[in-house]
Amino acid sequence: MPSPSPGYSITVRVHAPVGAGTTSTLAAAIASVKGAMTALDVVESHPDHMVIDLTCDASDVAHADQISTAIAEVPGVIVGKVSDRTFLLHLGGKLEVVPTVPLTHRDDLSRAYTPGVARVCTAIAEHPEDVRRLTIKRNTVAVVTDGSAVLGLGNIGAAASIPVMEGKAALFKRFAGVDAWPVCLDTQDPDAIVEIVRALAPVYGGINLEDISAPRCFEIEARLRGILDIPVFHDDQHGTAIVVLAALTNALRVVGKSLGRARIVVSGVGAAGHAVIRLLVAQGATNVIGCGRRGIVSPDDTADEFRTWIVEHTNPEGRTGSLRDALVGADVFIGVSAPNIVTGDDIAAMADESIVFALANPVPEVDPVAAGEHATVVATGRSDFPNQINNVLAFPGVFRGLLDAHAVDITDEMLIAAAGAIADRVSPSELNATYIVPSVFDATVAPAVAAAVREVAERGPRSEK
Amino acid sequence: MPSPSPGYSITVRVHAPVGAGTTSTLAAAIASVKGAMTALDVVESHPDHMVIDLTCDASDVAHADQISTAIAEVPGVIVGKVSDRTFLLHLGGKLEVVPTVPLTHRDDLSRAYTPGVARVCTAIAEHPEDVRRLTIKRNTVAVVTDGSAVLGLGNIGAAASIPVMEGKAALFKRFAGVDAWPVCLDTQDPDAIVEIVRALAPVYGGINLEDISAPRCFEIEARLRGILDIPVFHDDQHGTAIVVLAALTNALRVVGKSLGRARIVVSGVGAAGHAVIRLLVAQGATNVIGCGRRGIVSPDDTADEFRTWIVEHTNPEGRTGSLRDALVGADVFIGVSAPNIVTGDDIAAMADESIVFALANPVPEVDPVAAGEHATVVATGRSDFPNQINNVLAFPGVFRGLLDAHAVDITDEMLIAAAGAIADRVSPSELNATYIVPSVFDATVAPAVAAAVREVAERGPRSEK
Repeated sequence: MPSPSPGYSITVRVHAPVGAGTTSTLAAAIASVKGAMTALDVVESHPDHMVIDLTCDASDVAHADQISTAIAEVPGVIVGKVSDRTFLLHLGGKLEVVPTVPLTHRDDLSRAYTPGVARVCTAIAEHPEDVRRLTIKRNTVAVVTDGSAVLGLGNIGAAASIPVMEGKAALFKRFAGVDAWPVCLDTQDPDAIVEIVRALAPVYGGINLEDISAPRCFEIEARLRGILDIPVFHDDQHGTAIVVLAALTNALRVVGKSLGRARIVVSGVGAAGHAVIRLLVAQGATNVIGCGRRGIVSPDDTADEFRTWIVEHTNPEGRTGSLRDALVGADVFIGVSAPNIVTGDDIAAMADESIVFALANPVPEVDPVAAGEHATVVATGRSDFPNQINNVLAFPGVFRGLLDAHAVDITDEMLIAAAGAIADRVSPSELNATYIVPSVFDATVAPAVAAAVREVAERGPRSEK
Repeated sequence: MPSPSPGYSITVRVHAPVGAGTTSTLAAAIASVKGAMTALDVVESHPDHMVIDLTCDASDVAHADQISTAIAEVPGVIVGKVSDRTFLLHLGGKLEVVPTVPLTHRDDLSRAYTPGVARVCTAIAEHPEDVRRLTIKRNTVAVVTDGSAVLGLGNIGAAASIPVMEGKAALFKRFAGVDAWPVCLDTQDPDAIVEIVRALAPVYGGINLEDISAPRCFEIEARLRGILDIPVFHDDQHGTAIVVLAALTNALRVVGKSLGRARIVVSGVGAAGHAVIRLLVAQGATNVIGCGRRGIVSPDDTADEFRTWIVEHTNPEGRTGSLRDALVGADVFIGVSAPNIVTGDDIAAMADESIVFALANPVPEVDPVAAGEHATVVATGRSDFPNQINNVLAFPGVFRGLLDAHAVDITDEMLIAAAGAIADRVSPSELNATYIVPSVFDATVAPAVAAAVREVAERGPRSEK
C-alpha cells in the first residue's frame, strides 16, 4: 500500500463523549489502520459531548473508508459527515478568467470595448504581427487533450479529463505566469484534432498537448508543428524527456559515468518512452535499449515511422529478450511503463553504481526501497520519495521562454537547454544520490528554464519579432 | 463628426515655456479644433520650462492628429510623445487565467493535481452529470467567432477579432461573474465551425456566438442548438433583440401605444434585424415590416428558410416600396442597418408620438438630433446620447441565469423574460422619453435578468440538475 497522501485526505466529523482519553483513543483508532492524522479541530464543545473534525491522509479510497470505519468503532463516538478534501477543493473548478483592465467607468468601456476596440482590431488586421503585442496571445497556451490517455486512467474522454487540464493550467500560472486554458475535445480522430487546433490557434502563443494516447500523439504533434506558426509541445513526451535528461545528467555526475558510454534501458516505448529515447540520443547517448510489453524492441518492429526510428537508433548490440534480460549489466534503468514489472533482484543484476528511474505512477516499476538496496541512485514520480521526477520542473519555464521569445517552433536544442538549466539548479555542493533534481517549489527553476529556452529560441532563425 | 469619445483618447507630452498664459493657450489650441481636454498633468517643472501631459478625447484618428498639430503650433511648445490610451490599455491583452485554489504547498499540489485529481476524473467518468459540480464548466462561456462580421469592420478574420472577444469576456466577468474565454476560429466554413464548437463544448456551460455574418450565423446556431446540451446564444441576434424589446416596451409605455397594434418598421434583416423581428412577433407584435437594402422585403424573397420566415410573419398589409415608403404613418422605426439612410423629414412622416431606435454604430441611420425634432422617443447605440441600446444590459445576466439553472437550451420565453427584467429596472417614476433603459452600470440589472432567465429555465423540462 502506498504511503498516505494529501491527495486522499478526508475530514471526518464526529460526535464524541467529553473525557480525558477521547482524543487519544480517536488518534489510536486512526493509527491502528495506518491512517495519518494531520489535524484535530474541536468544532463545538458541550458539557457532555464534543464535535470534532479529524483530518487524515489515506492511501486510497478503500483506506479512507477503513479509517472512517475504525473511528466509528470507538465506543461512544458517532461519525457524522465525511468530507473528502480533494473533492471540496474541486467544487466549481480551479480557474477563473479575470479582466486585467479597469471596467468601472463609461470611459473604461469605451476603450476596452466599443468604440475604442475597433481601432485595435483594425491595427491587427493591417499589421497581423501586432497580434502578440495587443492581445492575450502574448501569454496564452492551450492545454489540449482528447481524453484518450489521462494520467494512468486511460481513455476516460473529454469531460472527465477537465480536472487535470485545469490543474495543469493552474500550475502554468503559479510557476511561470502563463495564462493557460483547457481545451478538452470531444473527438479522438487525429484529422479532426489537427483541424480544430489549427483553427483555434490564433488566440494562443503556444500549444501544450496533454494525455493523448500513442501513437496518435506523434502524428498529431508532427502535423500541427508543420502547419502552425506557434510552438507545439506534448508534455507527456517532451516535458518528461526534459526532466529525465536533467535528472540523468546529475545522476551520472553522482556515479561518475558518462551519457555517451552508459548502457541505458528504457522500459516503455509509448509517448514518454519514445521522447525520452529521442532526447537521450540527441544529447549523445549511444547505447539505449528500448523495451515494450513484449521485451526488447525487435529490429523487425516497424509498425509505424516512430517505431522504426527507435529500431534504427537504439540497441546497437542487437540484443533480444525480455526487459529483465536487458537489465543485466545495464548502467541505467528508466521506466515509463507499468507498475511492479521489475524486482530488487533484477536491479541487483545491473552494473555497479546503477541508476534507477522508476516513473510509473502511483506505483513504480520496481519498489523504490528494494531498488535502493542495489542501485546507487533511485528516482520515482512520487512525492513521498527523494528525487521526484516531476514535469512541473519543465513545462512552465519552457513555455515562459517560448512566449517571451515569440518563438514559432520548438527544437530539440531548446529541450536540451531546458534540461541543462534544471540540472544546474542543483549546485555541486548540493548534489548527492538523494538530491539530483531541485524541488518543484524552487522558485528559481522556471526563470532559469525560461532564460535557457529563450536564448536558444532567439538565436534561431524562426522566432517572430 | 461624432462627439469626442474616450475610445479615441490621446495623451500628448509637451515641453512648454513657463508662463502664466501657457496652459490656457494650450487649452485654447485644443478647443480651437474641437478637441475635448480631459486632463492636464504637469510631469516636470523647471525654471524655464515645464513638461506637461495633455489628455484629450478625439472624434477619430484624423481628429487626434489635428489636435496634436494644433498643440504643436502654439509658439514655444514642442510636442514629444503622443500616446494613444486605447492602445496602451490593450498592450498584452485584457484577460488573465487565475487559479482559484492554493498552490503554495506540496499538499496543495497533491490535491489540485496528481495524485488527488485522478479521483475527481474518475468520479466524472462514472457520473458524467458531476462535471458541472467539479469543474469550471459550472461557470464558463465560450465567446465564439470566425471574424466574419466584427463590429462594423466586416470580415477581418480571427486574429483581428481577438480584442473584441477579450473585451466581451471581460464584460462577462465584470457584470455577472461569468468566466468567458475567446474562441476565435481561423475558418469560416459552417460545417467546420459546428464541428469545432461541438468538440470543445465539454469545458463550457454555454456558447456565445459573436460577430458571425448572416445568414451563416443562423445555420450555425440552429445546428449547434440541435446537437449540444448547453445553451447557444448569438449575441448579435438575441442580445440585441432582448434590449430592443426592453427599450420598446418602455418607449411604448411613454407614448401610450401597444405592441400588438403598433406598426413597426425594422430596417436591416441581417442577424440583428432577423432576431429583433422574431422576438417582437413572439411577444405579440402583429404589424412588422422588414426592410432590406432593396426596400420592403418582398413576398417572393425566399432566399433561405430564414428569409422565408420573415416573409411569412411580417407585412400583413402586403406593402411594397422603399424604407421611406414604409415609414409613412409608422409608429416605430428600428434601425439595425447602415448610417444615414433616413432623414428628419422621413421621421416627420411617421405617425404622431413616434419612436425611433437608430442603432447603427457609430453613425446611426438618422441623425438623432434631427429625429428628435419629430419623434417622441429616440434611442441609439451610442453612449453620448440618451437611451443607449447596449447589449451589455442583456448578455451577462442571461448567461448568469442559464449557468445557475444548469440550462441545456435557451428559449424565446427566456429572452422575453430577460427583456421584461431590463424594462422593469426603470421604475414608473423614472420612466420618461429620455430614460427608457437603465444605465449599463446599474448593478441591479444583471441579477434581475439572471433571476428572470433562471426562473423560466428551471420551470422548463430541459434543465439539468
